[in-house]
Amino acid sequence: MEKVCIYGSGNWGTTAAKIIGENIPKFSGFHQTVNMFVHPEKFNGTELTELINTTNENPKYLPGHKLTSNIHATSDLREALDGVTMLVVVIPHQFLPSSMKAVAALIDTSKLKVISLIKGMYIAKDSIQTTTQAIEAILKVKPSVLSGANIASEIAGHQICESTLGCAFKSESDLWYNLFQTDYFNIQCVTDVYGVELYGALKNVVAVGVGIAEGTGVGNNSKAAILRLGLLEMKKFTLHLFPDTPNDIILQSCGVADLVTSCMGGRNYKLGVEFSKTKKSFDQLEEELLGGQKLQGPATAHEIYLYNKNHNLTEEFPLFTIIYQICYESRDTHDIFKTLHGLRL
Amino acid sequence: MEKVCIYGSGNWGTTAAKIIGENIPKFSGFHQTVNMFVHPEKFNGTELTELINTTNENPKYLPGHKLTSNIHATSDLREALDGVTMLVVVIPHQFLPSSMKAVAALIDTSKLKVISLIKGMYIAKDSIQTTTQAIEAILKVKPSVLSGANIASEIAGHQICESTLGCAFKSESDLWYNLFQTDYFNIQCVTDVYGVELYGALKNVVAVGVGIAEGTGVGNNSKAAILRLGLLEMKKFTLHLFPDTPNDIILQSCGVADLVTSCMGGRNYKLGVEFSKTKKSFDQLEEELLGGQKLQGPATAHEIYLYNKNHNLTEEFPLFTIIYQICYESRDTHDIFKTLHGLRL
Repeated sequence: MEKVCIYGSGNWGTTAAKIIGENIPKFSGFHQTVNMFVHPEKFNGTELTELINTTNENPKYLPGHKLTSNIHATSDLREALDGVTMLVVVIPHQFLPSSMKAVAALIDTSKLKVISLIKGMYIAKDSIQTTTQAIEAILKVKPSVLSGANIASEIAGHQICESTLGCAFKSESDLWYNLFQTDYFNIQCVTDVYGVELYGALKNVVAVGVGIAEGTGVGNNSKAAILRLGLLEMKKFTLHLFPDTPNDIILQSCGVADLVTSCMGGRNYKLGVEFSKTKKSFDQLEEELLGGQKLQGPATAHEIYLYNKNHNLTEEFPLFTIIYQICYESRDTHDIFKTLHGLRL
Repeated sequence: MEKVCIYGSGNWGTTAAKIIGENIPKFSGFHQTVNMFVHPEKFNGTELTELINTTNENPKYLPGHKLTSNIHATSDLREALDGVTMLVVVIPHQFLPSSMKAVAALIDTSKLKVISLIKGMYIAKDSIQTTTQAIEAILKVKPSVLSGANIASEIAGHQICESTLGCAFKSESDLWYNLFQTDYFNIQCVTDVYGVELYGALKNVVAVGVGIAEGTGVGNNSKAAILRLGLLEMKKFTLHLFPDTPNDIILQSCGVADLVTSCMGGRNYKLGVEFSKTKKSFDQLEEELLGGQKLQGPATAHEIYLYNKNHNLTEEFPLFTIIYQICYESRDTHDIFKTLHGLRL
């Protein structure tokens, strides 16, 4: 019997709970109660866990969408992890190391199946670490990943979309597929993990770049040229870090589709457009556009630049490099198009 | 000494003349006069050739953009082809066979270098023929092709964009590259030809499909899922016809970039949106939106469906098939999303 625990209760975590809660009764072999670990907090004076368990709704992070009654919210990690065999990790990435250490201190993780729903990468010393690598370093198991062109609120509203499930093990892949696949949420299974998650981080940098291009007033063909170069640099950078990444992962939802969606009007794209037009600081724009919420695109551009500089790779990635220079070194926005000239990628 | 003739004087042909006329003085080894064959017609009572040669402008097809004085317009095909070694073919595809036969009747084509700037494909009996195959059948040489995310009027206005040059022969590729590459028009050279040109035809079908999706009122993630599936079917269909097509051609400008541009607001996309919303006939929509101009998307969807039906392939290409069924068999527009369900491409 598999038993599922969802570690996290934000917008995406609660959406995952909604999907998994709906799917689990369709299959034998799963314990029918799914625990959701909720970081202790109150909402209108009542514990969030109590509200979720009594109303079958997360009023703070996914208001208006009912969960099935088989979802049990708790802020007691020991209770949440009781008997768990499949752990869904979906928390802000800054809390990842401490959270995973808490898990490792409570249970034997050697046979735990883990999936990360977190997009992101980290600079650790002189190397880049993906989210699953960070989890693996603590839990000592190789996690899977789910990443694609999807937004929690759209999925919760049953808007049709896709995601890529990266899992190295066939039988485990089938289990995760059964938990996530629905009529409206289409899962594609691949055996690669690192490429799937790295594309989800790198696409934010390219979206900033396409936004910068848009902000200069060019047409769609010019923007498409920057998007394409971005796609090629995403692929090249991923192959540099993980040479075994299959070539066709870039054509999965986590690659081209997530990038295209982001460049059709995602937040990093919009930030790039406004930065390009106004030259205001990112802090100021994030305050004005997003109430202070920090976006990953500029930060990831900075991290990649530092990595590439340390490894003499800045010229190998002209678009990543120039996006950094425009964002942080006052380089002219129109220079982004210089990356296309004479390109023979 | 190479001598260039441009066969065609429409919007794209005149833009090609503008680029080539500007580039030729930079290189030795080229005859400095470039002939442009103009189908005999008058503009405001004067022969178009006379207007082009006296004003260095094509007032009918590219008004407002000056050509260099080394462009010599003529409606005398014999004169146009005099001494030609490099022929740029850029005419509406329905005139292709008769035009190429006229060339073959006048000159020895065995050593002629030919490039096609025409996007399109043809159903010939039970097989599909690309434009260069149609040219090759008459001129008995293997042509090159130029296709990408670019629009003549934007290039003429020096908006930055890209194109893919498909040419099987390295030394010939360098010649075409020198003729077309500019600061604002970036050429990528590949050795594949058929894939490059087929993608340019297939992307129109997918753009209709993404427009149909948009017309149902979905968000960007749903549209990106259809676009991605379209990209995969473009690749699969091309590999079916031409198994030697390299995998990475889909990531060139002729592939992903041309498709993305088309789906950001191209004419086939807009036609799909209006069709999806209004269910009016394509004839009526083409009259209302485009003054009666015929678009290739619906016609190509029809041709591909006939081909696939003859070869028992309709289920192999669920998106192409359903786009045809929505366009011509009154299938419900929302059914387009059924292609995504359980997809394991």
